[in-house]
Amino acid sequence: MAQRPHDPPVTVTAPAAPGGQEVTTTKRTEAPAAAPEARTATAGEVLAGYLHAQATEFLRSLRLHGESGCDAEDAGEASRLLRRSARRIAGTLHVYRPLTDAAWADPLRAELAWLSDVLGHEHAFAARLVRLRGALHRLSGEGAADGAGLTVGAARAGALLDRRLTLARARAHSAALQALGSSRFHGVADSVAVLASDAPLDPAAYGLPAHQALEHLVEQAHRGLTEAVEALPLAVAGLPYNAEALAHGLAAAPASDAEPAEARQDVPWHRVRRLVRLRRYAQEVLDERQQAEAEPTLSVRLLAAGQALDRHRDAAEAALAASAAARTPRIAPATAYALGVLHADQRHEVEAARYAFDRIWQRLTGAVA
Amino acid sequence: MAQRPHDPPVTVTAPAAPGGQEVTTTKRTEAPAAAPEARTATAGEVLAGYLHAQATEFLRSLRLHGESGCDAEDAGEASRLLRRSARRIAGTLHVYRPLTDAAWADPLRAELAWLSDVLGHEHAFAARLVRLRGALHRLSGEGAADGAGLTVGAARAGALLDRRLTLARARAHSAALQALGSSRFHGVADSVAVLASDAPLDPAAYGLPAHQALEHLVEQAHRGLTEAVEALPLAVAGLPYNAEALAHGLAAAPASDAEPAEARQDVPWHRVRRLVRLRRYAQEVLDERQQAEAEPTLSVRLLAAGQALDRHRDAAEAALAASAAARTPRIAPATAYALGVLHADQRHEVEAARYAFDRIWQRLTGAVA
Repeated sequence: MAQRPHDPPVTVTAPAAPGGQEVTTTKRTEAPAAAPEARTATAGEVLAGYLHAQATEFLRSLRLHGESGCDAEDAGEASRLLRRSARRIAGTLHVYRPLTDAAWADPLRAELAWLSDVLGHEHAFAARLVRLRGALHRLSGEGAADGAGLTVGAARAGALLDRRLTLARARAHSAALQALGSSRFHGVADSVAVLASDAPLDPAAYGLPAHQALEHLVEQAHRGLTEAVEALPLAVAGLPYNAEALAHGLAAAPASDAEPAEARQDVPWHRVRRLVRLRRYAQEVLDERQQAEAEPTLSVRLLAAGQALDRHRDAAEAALAASAAARTPRIAPATAYALGVLHADQRHEVEAARYAFDRIWQRLTGAVA
Repeated sequence: MAQRPHDPPVTVTAPAAPGGQEVTTTKRTEAPAAAPEARTATAGEVLAGYLHAQATEFLRSLRLHGESGCDAEDAGEASRLLRRSARRIAGTLHVYRPLTDAAWADPLRAELAWLSDVLGHEHAFAARLVRLRGALHRLSGEGAADGAGLTVGAARAGALLDRRLTLARARAHSAALQALGSSRFHGVADSVAVLASDAPLDPAAYGLPAHQALEHLVEQAHRGLTEAVEALPLAVAGLPYNAEALAHGLAAAPASDAEPAEARQDVPWHRVRRLVRLRRYAQEVLDERQQAEAEPTLSVRLLAAGQALDRHRDAAEAALAASAAARTPRIAPATAYALGVLHADQRHEVEAARYAFDRIWQRLTGAVA
């Protein structure tokens, strides 16, 4: 949570998207005294304030990580918070780039993306295993009256996925530890420490009124997002049971190292996921300025849209993990069969996430227009 | 088509349900001169008229079948028409049972069910193979720009299904031919010939005004259908992507020879499919009386509801065929994987058909209420 030292935020819980996890956002209590002050704030002051808060949070999470020692859960939570502020700093530097000292900010942005990526893998593999295990149990009708349990093939598929993803997770853990000990990481941490005390902004930003300069750039980000969404096949995705997501489930791999058709189909959705996230962070900066969420409905819907696309990404990657496991040499046909069912099931989740996104986006554009 | 000799029907094509095949219904042009006559018709006259028409159709199809010789297509079409009238005769004798001579009609009804069943298998296996082949090609992204084609596993799965279903079809063909040559069948044909000249009705039926006696029994059939629909889990089926149909896709087989959970889940839907069909045939008798469709919307919606449930049945049986093929000894893991994907795909079609039925039923009850 983006806690600023001078004003304890009120935490509200957004309604969880189906299948998604709850995400908390911070919503400030209205502070009437702050309003006139907010009106006269410059873009530079608002941006510097937000970056300061996120940088402070980053450094605090780093300290927490160092103190976590051998406690995997604490270390995991610290890593999550670290990635959280890294993404927000990078996103803010991206959307509000014209107000920053780009020569200083651009390389930091790239380094934060690297860090977020290298720290994220361990969590992603763990979450993928949880998702696939959950799907296997759901597909065995667990909880049904007869409690039939998994088929032999499904149990073996589960064990195979367990081995593969646990190994991948352990490797990602080592890579993350190595990254955190590297001089490259220390460079990032130093830059963020600078950010906490002295945000690298264009001096002109301190001469611009916040409401004009910031909103203009947010609108630009929103336009970029809208264009990317309009390029999505929403006419199909908005129809339930369109069977589109599995349309390449059994397509032969294309020549050489080209991406499989199924993954290619997902690319524009992943792009929109990132743009929704950027737009959401940009809104957080605006909300800081107004000391309250100007458009709480918009924030909640952006969050829901992002959650639907997170689910899209997670299901797509779980489907890939299932089909990759099915290529393990010498597995039993029953195991391969279960992995095929699992693959199709996750692609169906992909399709469901697209449908959910379409519904949310329709409401979102209705609210914005 | 239920053609009556004295009045050439106008054939209208109902809108095809997604994935379903087109079905033609007959709709009579309004004949104002017939209206007063229709009002005074007795229940016995109307029923006898409908049964006469269907029995004539049955005997004509039988002649066509005999004349078809070695032409498989003609024989197939004649068999389809034979089953069509057999189902209508049996359905009419069922819904309007209190107006029939039950001691004569009940055994005929059972025999017609046997005939319809034994003649239907050949077509069902052929249609199942077409459906599964179509699904395999859809899942290979056929028609996509890159035209990747099937994976090796999918191609092998296709060949395996081809072998299995072609064999099953050939066996069903022999069984049908044997049935048509049996004395049991000649008994059925003799009974239908009697039906064509002298319908086995309760003499009292000729004393009852058609509009009361028939509509009362149709309402009873409608009530039975409504009760069966209300017992369906429509609250779940009406939500898109509820993932219910595949919920037992990887459940271990229950003890001994109990039905697998997935098939058990489908049973109430199959029951409703049969009740919708009965209700539709009952409506045809009513429509005969009024020499025009009294409620064309109702007829069209009953037809659409039936088509959704036909699709439900076809997809459920195709899914079973895929999982049965996966139990073939010594198949390659890649083949088993493709069959797993195919099984899940067909179960999703099952789910989609339930969703479609829910929508149609909502409109149907809206129209009836």
